Amino acid sequence: MEIRRPVILISNDDGIQAGGILALSEVARSFGDVIVVAPDSPQSAMGHAITITKPLRLYKEKLADGSLGYACNGTPADCVKLATGVLLKRNPDLVLSGINHGTNSSASTIYSGTLSAAREGAIQGIPAIGFSLCNYSDEADMTAAKEIVRTIIATALRQKFAAGQLLNVNIPNLPLEAIKGIKTTRQAAGRWVEEFDERTDPQGRKYYWLTGKFILQDDRDDSDEAALNQGFVSVTPLTHDLTHLEMFEVVNKWEFTA
Amino acid sequence: MEIRRPVILISNDDGIQAGGILALSEVARSFGDVIVVAPDSPQSAMGHAITITKPLRLYKEKLADGSLGYACNGTPADCVKLATGVLLKRNPDLVLSGINHGTNSSASTIYSGTLSAAREGAIQGIPAIGFSLCNYSDEADMTAAKEIVRTIIATALRQKFAAGQLLNVNIPNLPLEAIKGIKTTRQAAGRWVEEFDERTDPQGRKYYWLTGKFILQDDRDDSDEAALNQGFVSVTPLTHDLTHLEMFEVVNKWEFTA
Repeated sequence: MEIRRPVILISNDDGIQAGGILALSEVARSFGDVIVVAPDSPQSAMGHAITITKPLRLYKEKLADGSLGYACNGTPADCVKLATGVLLKRNPDLVLSGINHGTNSSASTIYSGTLSAAREGAIQGIPAIGFSLCNYSDEADMTAAKEIVRTIIATALRQKFAAGQLLNVNIPNLPLEAIKGIKTTRQAAGRWVEEFDERTDPQGRKYYWLTGKFILQDDRDDSDEAALNQGFVSVTPLTHDLTHLEMFEVVNKWEFTA
Repeated sequence: MEIRRPVILISNDDGIQAGGILALSEVARSFGDVIVVAPDSPQSAMGHAITITKPLRLYKEKLADGSLGYACNGTPADCVKLATGVLLKRNPDLVLSGINHGTNSSASTIYSGTLSAAREGAIQGIPAIGFSLCNYSDEADMTAAKEIVRTIIATALRQKFAAGQLLNVNIPNLPLEAIKGIKTTRQAAGRWVEEFDERTDPQGRKYYWLTGKFILQDDRDDSDEAALNQGFVSVTPLTHDLTHLEMFEVVNKWEFTA
C-alpha cells in the first residue's frame, strides 16, 4: 500500500530569501512534499491585499539551502492563489506561512501579511497555519522555533484539523528550554497608537513615516499576549467569517428610518 | 446651549475623485462637519494593508463639487491613520467609507479596501460604516444609494452605536422604489475561485491577470448575499476579533506533542 505524502504549500510575507521561510520549509519536508511560493520582496503589513491592477509573475528561485522555490511579484495572498491555480492546479493538503520575523498577535493579526497567506488557504478550504517568532531581526535564531513548528505541525496533522481552519501561532523569543509550553489562546484586544514621524524632503515638502506603539486593552489570562508574556507559545484559531454575532442581535432590533 | 456637530471622517478605496465618495460626503454634510481623506489612486482589494516601507504624503485636493479634501499616496487604512494622527489630532465621531463602486459582501469583506478604512476606524474605537453599491461602473447612478446612506447614518446615530463597532452596508443596484427594505445580515460563506488569465509579454515571458468567479457556499436566509439577491440592503455588523470561538474549544483539547 502506497501512502501518499501530504503536499504542503509554504509562503510568507518577509520574502523568499528570508531566514524564516528556510527554517519552515526545512521542518515541513519531514512531513510531506513541499512547494515554496513566496513574495520576491518583503510584504509586511500587507493585510489581506490581492493584486488586480497589475500582472502577476512567477520566477523560479533558489532558497539559501539550494532548494527550488517560486518567487512572485505579488502579495502573500496572491502567492497562494497562484500556487493553487497555476502551479499545482489543485489544493495542497496544508498551507503554512512564515516563520515571520516578528510577532503577529492581537491587532497585528489584522495587518499581518503572514496570516493573509494562511487565511487565503483557509478561505480555499485548506487547513492553514501561520507561524511568527517574536524577534524582528533578519538574523533571528530559528533553532527553538523550528522545534515548536515541528510539534505544532505533527499535532495538527494528527488531530481533526478540518479543511478551512486556520491557526495563528506565535513563538516567544526564548531558548527551547525556557519556553513554558503551548497554550490555546484568543486574539487579545489591543491597538496600535500611531505616532507619525513628520519630516521634510529636499524640496521642502512634508512626508510621514508610520510608526506606532502597541496598547494592550485586554486583561484575560487566555489571550495571545498573556501567553507570550508568560513565555508560552500562543495558538489562536482564527475565523474568516467576520460577522459580529452579538452586534447582529442589537442591529436586528434597530428601526431603519431617516 | 451650543450643540456640537459630529465630526465625520470619510475615506474610500476607489480614490478621492470617485463618484461614490462625492455622494457619501454630500449626504454626510447634513449630519456633521466632514473631512475627506482618501487615496490618490484606486486601491481596490487592498485588504487591511498599511504602508511601512515608504513615506506617506498628504495633498490638498478638490473633489468634483469643489469641496476640499486630502489625497494620500497610501492605502485606505493609512488614510484613516493619517487623518486621526496628523490632520485632526483627535478621533472623529464617525468614520464612513465608500460609497464603493462594487459589492463587498461574503468573502469580499476580507479583501475589501473600503472596509479596511472603516475597520481602521473601529480598531481605533470610532463607530464606522462601510458603504458599497452593487454596481462596478465608474459612472454608477448614486441617487438611490444616497437615500439609503442617509437612512443608515440617521439610524446609526440615533441608536446606541457604540465606539469601535463596524457595519458593512451593501446596497442593491436598483431604483429606490424597487429596494425592498434594509435587513440585518451575516457574512455569507463563499469564496472566489481563481481563474488566471495567462498571457505572454513581448519578451516571451508569461504573466498572469488575477480574475475569478464567486461561489456562494451558504443557503441561510439571513446572509448578506441572500438579502441582496432578494432586493434588500444588507447591513452586516463586523468584528475585528478574529478568534474562532468554536475552534478554540477544539484546539484547547489537543495534546501538543511532536
